[in-house]
Amino acid sequence: MTDLFSRHSALLERAVTALHERSYWTPYPEVPSSKNYGETAKADGEAAFAALQGQLFQLAGHPESSRRGAEVSPFGPELGITYPACEPATLIAAAKNAAPALAAAGIESRVGVCLEILHRLNRMSFLIGHATQHTTGQAFAMAFQAGGPHAQDRGLEAVAMAWEEMIRFPTEARWEKPQGKAAPIILEKHWTLVPAGVALTIGCNTFPTWNSYPGLFASLATGNPVIVKPHPAAILPMALTVRVAREVLAEEGLPMDAVLLAVDAPGAEITTELATDPAVKLIDYTGSNQFGGWLRENARQAQLFTEEAGVNSVVIAATDDFDGMCANLAFSLSLYSGQMCTAPQNIYISVDGIDTDKGHLSFDSVADGIGKAIDALLDDPARTAGVCGAVANPATLARRDSIRARGRVIRNSGALAEGRTATPLLMAVDAGDALAESECFGPVAFLVATKDADDGIGRAADLAARKGAITAALYDTDEDRIGRAIAAFTAAGVNLSINLTGNIFVNQSAAFSDFHVTGANPAGNASLTDTAFVATRFRRVMWRRTVTS
Amino acid sequence: MTDLFSRHSALLERAVTALHERSYWTPYPEVPSSKNYGETAKADGEAAFAALQGQLFQLAGHPESSRRGAEVSPFGPELGITYPACEPATLIAAAKNAAPALAAAGIESRVGVCLEILHRLNRMSFLIGHATQHTTGQAFAMAFQAGGPHAQDRGLEAVAMAWEEMIRFPTEARWEKPQGKAAPIILEKHWTLVPAGVALTIGCNTFPTWNSYPGLFASLATGNPVIVKPHPAAILPMALTVRVAREVLAEEGLPMDAVLLAVDAPGAEITTELATDPAVKLIDYTGSNQFGGWLRENARQAQLFTEEAGVNSVVIAATDDFDGMCANLAFSLSLYSGQMCTAPQNIYISVDGIDTDKGHLSFDSVADGIGKAIDALLDDPARTAGVCGAVANPATLARRDSIRARGRVIRNSGALAEGRTATPLLMAVDAGDALAESECFGPVAFLVATKDADDGIGRAADLAARKGAITAALYDTDEDRIGRAIAAFTAAGVNLSINLTGNIFVNQSAAFSDFHVTGANPAGNASLTDTAFVATRFRRVMWRRTVTS
Repeated sequence: MTDLFSRHSALLERAVTALHERSYWTPYPEVPSSKNYGETAKADGEAAFAALQGQLFQLAGHPESSRRGAEVSPFGPELGITYPACEPATLIAAAKNAAPALAAAGIESRVGVCLEILHRLNRMSFLIGHATQHTTGQAFAMAFQAGGPHAQDRGLEAVAMAWEEMIRFPTEARWEKPQGKAAPIILEKHWTLVPAGVALTIGCNTFPTWNSYPGLFASLATGNPVIVKPHPAAILPMALTVRVAREVLAEEGLPMDAVLLAVDAPGAEITTELATDPAVKLIDYTGSNQFGGWLRENARQAQLFTEEAGVNSVVIAATDDFDGMCANLAFSLSLYSGQMCTAPQNIYISVDGIDTDKGHLSFDSVADGIGKAIDALLDDPARTAGVCGAVANPATLARRDSIRARGRVIRNSGALAEGRTATPLLMAVDAGDALAESECFGPVAFLVATKDADDGIGRAADLAARKGAITAALYDTDEDRIGRAIAAFTAAGVNLSINLTGNIFVNQSAAFSDFHVTGANPAGNASLTDTAFVATRFRRVMWRRTVTS
Repeated sequence: MTDLFSRHSALLERAVTALHERSYWTPYPEVPSSKNYGETAKADGEAAFAALQGQLFQLAGHPESSRRGAEVSPFGPELGITYPACEPATLIAAAKNAAPALAAAGIESRVGVCLEILHRLNRMSFLIGHATQHTTGQAFAMAFQAGGPHAQDRGLEAVAMAWEEMIRFPTEARWEKPQGKAAPIILEKHWTLVPAGVALTIGCNTFPTWNSYPGLFASLATGNPVIVKPHPAAILPMALTVRVAREVLAEEGLPMDAVLLAVDAPGAEITTELATDPAVKLIDYTGSNQFGGWLRENARQAQLFTEEAGVNSVVIAATDDFDGMCANLAFSLSLYSGQMCTAPQNIYISVDGIDTDKGHLSFDSVADGIGKAIDALLDDPARTAGVCGAVANPATLARRDSIRARGRVIRNSGALAEGRTATPLLMAVDAGDALAESECFGPVAFLVATKDADDGIGRAADLAARKGAITAALYDTDEDRIGRAIAAFTAAGVNLSINLTGNIFVNQSAAFSDFHVTGANPAGNASLTDTAFVATRFRRVMWRRTVTS
């Protein structure tokens, strides 16, 4: 039963090393080339995606009392796929039935299963890419990366962290206490890992795999059956994942129902019923602060691991590469139309302007520079489509439109040729404007005029501490002020990127290196993937007895 | 500033090794001898304790607007000591003021401080022993051990665990991502540990130091200022601890208010106000499930680490050493009059009796054997006082008296010569009797008649899963049934001791080896000391910038 573990143990060992080095590493190539994935991978992925559309999605042996699913691609077409669905109580019962065998399987068996699942998911990254593209609206290149190898990285990271934690202490020990001249007291002690219970992974629309894999794999590796509850608009990527997981489990003689799919429809959600079931002890959740708050209030029987929302900020204090800065920001603002939890929203600029390699530039000149850099980035329709993708949720466009009427537009948002699309809207607002005080998810950014750079740093850090933030960025040439900014954003619990100008962006979070979300501000309480993310998913229980010989 | 760290680094290294070996180890001798503590230690401790009585307890520089304290020894005398007291808001403000410097001090500085505090506490173990005796009612020998070296062990264990977790990942890394034929992207990354916030340690009456040190030291080592809130009947041991902590902090140039004392009086409690303050992010609590539930409901801004209560069980299935078993149980039931969170309460015995080395013995014969073993243990007044100590809370005796009237008494509870004392009450009840379904803290045990041994195992494990349990014990000679019992108690999340007959007892939990409380049943969510106990007391926050050379 540990054959899979042996097969992947070198990879596991390398992943554990990567966790501790935190330099660049991945076993899953991010470039969708035939060199990496084989000559037929691209065509196979397209064909497999085409074959799924308009069909009943098959999940062998999965509980099913009805069919649900009404996904529509943000690029236009309905997917026409339906998935097996059933009552929440049926899913809970199936998960509970699977629990004893999964717990008894042991660490190596479960970790081997997880690594094999990830391996198979990687080989089908093209299909996952198409599924991600047509549920999230990401352009294919991004959907391939974020939905495929980058998500797999985060899954592997969670498995490696769980593995390290599970073997951190011995499973047995001999305890020998001296008794002076008398014979010592000797006990043998044995520890068993006891999983927490049924796990629920609640996915989001925009990154259905990337945000779900850490919780899914952390819970499964530590022995907890997982009910995967995808967003009703982005089921397919996780349905494919669940299918692979169930296949590997079955091949290893483990209960397939250790991984289950919970499909619902808008207006007939089952998330609240699942989340409050007494058997559910772990919940991984990605989504709004509002529903996060509901879970905290109501799902009190479970441990909650969340990535919610916040307001990400950029402070422009000074730069010695104005064009590089504007180009970098233009890409960060345009990528996937601002629908990343890491995308910047507020850009703080001194009302008196900033010093640059092009001389002192006024607030309006800086704003204009960023706007023009966006125009330049998006002047080619094909490239624009590849950068912006489409907008996942129609409400995002409505919100943009309502905001546009409320201030001074620096650069207007427009549509692309195909699908529900939008380029970034740039607006100038005064410091303290309520618009910039809360999250405005999507292709909207606010250029906020501040008294000076330190005022901007203070406002951005304060907002992060109060409302949450996942990223922050700073452009500056004054090392003293950079030090103050580091201190302020550190205290606010936000990861800070300084002077990014090349082909690396504040939005990007690399597995095995960046701890994604710090857990230290309201943007979420879980960090991918630190010790705390895995340590409470299981417990150690001992039995001990006297050794008489 | 890292002088203390260097001084104690060999000890720290040895403690980390002990965490992972989990065999017997301690640096703090448990025997109160002159060989271990010096020729004058005993006399010095007695003199120091005498000098404190009837005085104002001095805490230099501590916030103070009034004096509180009305401790009365369970052995009789009022201590007459008053402590500096002030409004909760003053304590919170002082803790917040201390926070930045404590965070900035860095890992080695804080860990060095913690190790020095523990060192000094160890040297004053006699004084701590007297203070513990006359607040808890423990006999001196036990008060010395549990209040002194054993508590110090648990503190050191928490420091070692926190240390290992804080250095688990690097504080900086170079991240170099290949870009094909182009130059790689290189980022330098830096991580800072950010403490969670103000910590509150809520102590209990019976083990004021043992149960408070883990949270106190885990929080302090990870950079969180700690407000120590002792039980109003057991202030002195923690007041002495706070004083030592503040002295060491001051000597190291750190804010003394990183450790504060919160004293209140029955009827004028300040715990709820402290626990719900927005600045309080960590709460370590030992006490009743009732107040634990209140904290869960109301102190929502904080992470909660609890040791609450449960019903500990013994199943007597069979034994090949009947006398040894009875003697062992007699001691476990008598020790500190059953006021240990680890003391057994329910003893399950088949209604048809059990097989022993003395032949088959009926239920009543087994019950009688245990009762007689208690009588034999307690037939010498001096030894009895040393075992039973005194009863901390008068309500414990009232509860015993009300229970005595509700069933068949096997062995009656009596008083000793001095102080508020009680020997164990043994009562026989039927399986399912409500008496045995909930915790009855103190010198009361129920002999529960079950259908057979497996019925007893099932009932004990089920009760543990529903109501919580910290310990379980089994006496059996049938290896198959022992295996079933291990499985049942493991699933219920209870540590199980099998066939203890010598000088080792189910009540005893050894630091660096036994994880005390598993966190896997309602008896508590924290385990001393596993990774989860320290991992969320701080977070990692990054700053990164491009490396251009």
